[in-house]
Amino acid sequence: MKHKKNNLIFIMGVSGVGKSTIGALLSEQLEMPFFDGDDFHPDENIRKMSNGEPLNDEDRRGWLHTVNDLAKKELERSGAVIACSALKTSYREILSTGILGKVHWVFLKGSFEEIRERIGNREGHFMGSGLLQSQFDTLEEPVEAIHVDINLTPKKIVEVISNQLEKSAFGLFGLGVMGKSLARNLASRGFNISLFNRHVDGQEVDVAKKFQSEFSELSSAAPFDDVAQFVGSLQQPRKIMLMVNAGKIVDAVIEDLLPHLDAGDILIDGGNSNYNDTNKRVEYLKSKDIRFVGTGVSGGEEGALKGPSIMPGCEQETYKEVQPFLESIAAKDANGLPCCAWIGTGGSGHFVKMVHNGIEYVEMQLLAEIFTALRAMGNNPDQMADILESWKTTSNSYLLEITIDILRKKEGDDWLVNKIMDKAGNKGTGNWTAIASAQLGMPSTMITSALYARYISFFKDERIAASQSLLTQSQANLKIQIEDLLQAYQFARLINHYQGFKLILEASNSFNWELNLSELARIWTNGCIIRSDLMVELVSVFKEADHLLMDKTITERLKNLKTSALEVVADCVLNELAIPNLSDSVNFLNSFSLADSSANLLQAQRDYFGAHTYQRKDDPSGKFYHTEWLIK
Amino acid sequence: MKHKKNNLIFIMGVSGVGKSTIGALLSEQLEMPFFDGDDFHPDENIRKMSNGEPLNDEDRRGWLHTVNDLAKKELERSGAVIACSALKTSYREILSTGILGKVHWVFLKGSFEEIRERIGNREGHFMGSGLLQSQFDTLEEPVEAIHVDINLTPKKIVEVISNQLEKSAFGLFGLGVMGKSLARNLASRGFNISLFNRHVDGQEVDVAKKFQSEFSELSSAAPFDDVAQFVGSLQQPRKIMLMVNAGKIVDAVIEDLLPHLDAGDILIDGGNSNYNDTNKRVEYLKSKDIRFVGTGVSGGEEGALKGPSIMPGCEQETYKEVQPFLESIAAKDANGLPCCAWIGTGGSGHFVKMVHNGIEYVEMQLLAEIFTALRAMGNNPDQMADILESWKTTSNSYLLEITIDILRKKEGDDWLVNKIMDKAGNKGTGNWTAIASAQLGMPSTMITSALYARYISFFKDERIAASQSLLTQSQANLKIQIEDLLQAYQFARLINHYQGFKLILEASNSFNWELNLSELARIWTNGCIIRSDLMVELVSVFKEADHLLMDKTITERLKNLKTSALEVVADCVLNELAIPNLSDSVNFLNSFSLADSSANLLQAQRDYFGAHTYQRKDDPSGKFYHTEWLIK
Repeated sequence: MKHKKNNLIFIMGVSGVGKSTIGALLSEQLEMPFFDGDDFHPDENIRKMSNGEPLNDEDRRGWLHTVNDLAKKELERSGAVIACSALKTSYREILSTGILGKVHWVFLKGSFEEIRERIGNREGHFMGSGLLQSQFDTLEEPVEAIHVDINLTPKKIVEVISNQLEKSAFGLFGLGVMGKSLARNLASRGFNISLFNRHVDGQEVDVAKKFQSEFSELSSAAPFDDVAQFVGSLQQPRKIMLMVNAGKIVDAVIEDLLPHLDAGDILIDGGNSNYNDTNKRVEYLKSKDIRFVGTGVSGGEEGALKGPSIMPGCEQETYKEVQPFLESIAAKDANGLPCCAWIGTGGSGHFVKMVHNGIEYVEMQLLAEIFTALRAMGNNPDQMADILESWKTTSNSYLLEITIDILRKKEGDDWLVNKIMDKAGNKGTGNWTAIASAQLGMPSTMITSALYARYISFFKDERIAASQSLLTQSQANLKIQIEDLLQAYQFARLINHYQGFKLILEASNSFNWELNLSELARIWTNGCIIRSDLMVELVSVFKEADHLLMDKTITERLKNLKTSALEVVADCVLNELAIPNLSDSVNFLNSFSLADSSANLLQAQRDYFGAHTYQRKDDPSGKFYHTEWLIK
Repeated sequence: MKHKKNNLIFIMGVSGVGKSTIGALLSEQLEMPFFDGDDFHPDENIRKMSNGEPLNDEDRRGWLHTVNDLAKKELERSGAVIACSALKTSYREILSTGILGKVHWVFLKGSFEEIRERIGNREGHFMGSGLLQSQFDTLEEPVEAIHVDINLTPKKIVEVISNQLEKSAFGLFGLGVMGKSLARNLASRGFNISLFNRHVDGQEVDVAKKFQSEFSELSSAAPFDDVAQFVGSLQQPRKIMLMVNAGKIVDAVIEDLLPHLDAGDILIDGGNSNYNDTNKRVEYLKSKDIRFVGTGVSGGEEGALKGPSIMPGCEQETYKEVQPFLESIAAKDANGLPCCAWIGTGGSGHFVKMVHNGIEYVEMQLLAEIFTALRAMGNNPDQMADILESWKTTSNSYLLEITIDILRKKEGDDWLVNKIMDKAGNKGTGNWTAIASAQLGMPSTMITSALYARYISFFKDERIAASQSLLTQSQANLKIQIEDLLQAYQFARLINHYQGFKLILEASNSFNWELNLSELARIWTNGCIIRSDLMVELVSVFKEADHLLMDKTITERLKNLKTSALEVVADCVLNELAIPNLSDSVNFLNSFSLADSSANLLQAQRDYFGAHTYQRKDDPSGKFYHTEWLIK
């Protein structure tokens, strides 16, 4: 049997359903050791049960941990079958601690009357039949288990269980760059998975099969190019992760899958879908009794393979079902916790991933502007790399590190970066973040200007024409020092993180998502593109503050960095350098630190031409006034 | 009869249909003079016709103009009935020159055989019956006319015509501030209109009736609060302008009207609807055979009353039907032409109105930033007004003028502007412009930052907190002069108009609207909020150039203004003044005038972490490359 190894099978149910009998038979067939959980009860528990006293939760706790230890130990070998009543969800949680996703639950199910009759026929069992009713009272039936009717013959019961065990625990739909990496990641954690890739006429065939044969960790994975067979290969409730291009393809794939799914099955969209689409899909699939998880996955190809940051949005109950898989493939933070956590309901997972990418746009653009300034100061890429290397001690981030690698990369005598066309692409998420900001009334100036910087870069021909007609200086002559630049960079990154998380906070309030910003910062400390030392710091900041400007340490730091930031922006502007993002960081704070802004004039103008009315500073009631402005 | 005055009724059709008979009877009933157009033929034409020679277009031109002069003269008195064959559309265009919308066409219609028989029975007419066929060949049947069958008795024919003439030419649905002003505007141009306002339970009743009784120009307008009666009071094809709040209300009103409309009727949405909604409504109503016009209307309450700028989007054929009404109520440009022109199909009218408002946001914000700088230089509002007064000679605009009025307005010893709460409202169009920019890939940095400036203003409490913790200077100490500020203002306005019209150009290309930017600038030279001397200049600029940076005069001016603009921004930034929009104007041009930007670094980063590939400067083929960046 293919899937027998590296699995832990718990046979559960009330006393008298035949857990030991079935467990022993199954262990024989699967060639795995069998253990009876009851053999691990401490003496005190056995005494109580012999006296007909029911065990309480305190009595059981130590025993359950003992059985869990046994399960972990056996899993490290070749797996095992363990019989154990495990009546409550909380008991099962203890039993599966640390081995989630590799545990199969088999629930032997019968009615009170059927079981009372069986117990009457049995000998040598230490439980008085008087305890049966209390067991039924305690029982919380497991949704996650294979349910088997005890009225079948033992042979038939073992057959039913074996059939289910042969099925895969998780399905991956779509084997592009990210899908392949996630598949290998899942398989390498010991999960039995099914793989699907569409067969496209005239193109590559047997994509899944070929991919499966390429990597040893996929030896027990099951490849498919037929949707029905793929779905049929999965344990129920099925968990299918879609790794296809965002947009209409997701809807098409959902329609392909729907006829083969059963109520309660779970679809997980791991692409960069727009959160509005995800909201709609959740509702649509709810009407079909299918559960939907929209999850952000960040880390690129390598992250997906070795451990991405994962941001799933769904009902909290649904999360419990996909949690073992997602948390086990995620990156780990400094404390060893997975960089994956339940984000919130609906499109919240895709929303935070979108803003993650928005923050990423800015972090990239700021480095590009530092590159611009350093170049204007006369540094070649190697010299720039040396300077940035020295910034690691105070301002390290993944993007800083890869920028250093990039700057050092040579091609012949020249640096490769000099040969790359300066037209930046974008794939939607930065765009959507800017749109969400406009819609939510949040002034995300930096994300928007980072997006617009990419747009401007695309007008290469028009830029060349403008450079000939509109530049006034032939040579930059900067007064600022490298240290000023570092401080302006630190300043701008703080404003960027303020704006990004503030946008998430606003969305959380608007959509009632109740997002946990500290936990979000935590899962972004590793695996994802915007991981950084600053992000690690934000985990604690958000435990106290709703946003960065509420944190005293941060505001003091901003104030200290501000003078340099102002000087860098002023000097670069005067020298016609392109630093829109650095500039917007100081313009934002200059606008935001004004107790009295000039918006009173805007309100007067609006009232003048459109009778839009205005409120007054000297009337706290908020009443609206209108004036006939024209002096006749 | 209510509508008989101030109308010019042309009875048309081929010779022999009874134009003179019907015209004379009708004139008697309407108590208006009657003229037979044929009496105004020059001798040469009469000679030709007597010889059985058909007239050519050249023969007719002078005669048609003579009849048109007659019509205009009679319209200034009390109207008239004129019989005139008017067989071609081009003839009717000459006949109605300058009196469009006040002309009614009555087409007496019969078959060739019926008319030949009539002519045979007639005496004293100078046309030989041999010319009849050539008249039928020439005839282009008028869609805009009241069609009447000549087989009815003359009495019945006159009755049919009278009934139609009693109906209104135009309907106005919704009597809010803008609806009322447009209604008075239409009525004061002599149009017979119907007015509708919903009766809302528990609120004001008889809104339309009361409004109609308030203003003398509305004496012949017909008020309604019943949709069926309102629609029934209109001549077909009906023209109904909706002046209701943008959004779902428009759809609800459309559904209310639909059951009462006939194929070919025209709905005109004059609210600030989102152009995407307008696109959808055009398609929806097309499926119901109803024509839809989405039109921008700018000018506020006063503009709507005295002459707004109007931007209608629809099929070109449909425009011809609404043209007389819209053009006659529009403002007039310096050459006396109406500030109303056909924009393009679909949502184009609402799109350009949206961008109009985006440009307006920036023009307002720039004045607010000038206010900020002038205040920091120590000027009180009266002094600011004096300074701005002196700017009129080089940079006049409606918004500059009203700002001067506002600054001078006092309340007791203080200026009113100082008492207005500095939280700026917004109603959607600025927001939509920013979203459209992001979607179309256009870097509309100024519109977006003007929008964000309003958003920032709204965080009043957070601003007060930030002012206490984040300001580093107690007092501004600016080095720049007033003259620099004027130049920075001129510079930023040019960039604003560049970006606004560039966004429209991009939309025109994307949606195949083929918009005429010069004509658009022309209809924005009067009536609308962004009218200015610069807008007048742009009318000619766009005759040659697709965008402002293609115009040599403009680019030279920008270059000359740039040094001051850079200095103003640098100085204000150093002094912690809030000038995000001025700043974005120079940052945009600094970014846009770079032949070599730093986007090569962005592309390298994207390729590093996401294998997004890049193009090379030394490979004009545009091929995509990928590099393994990590130096191991």
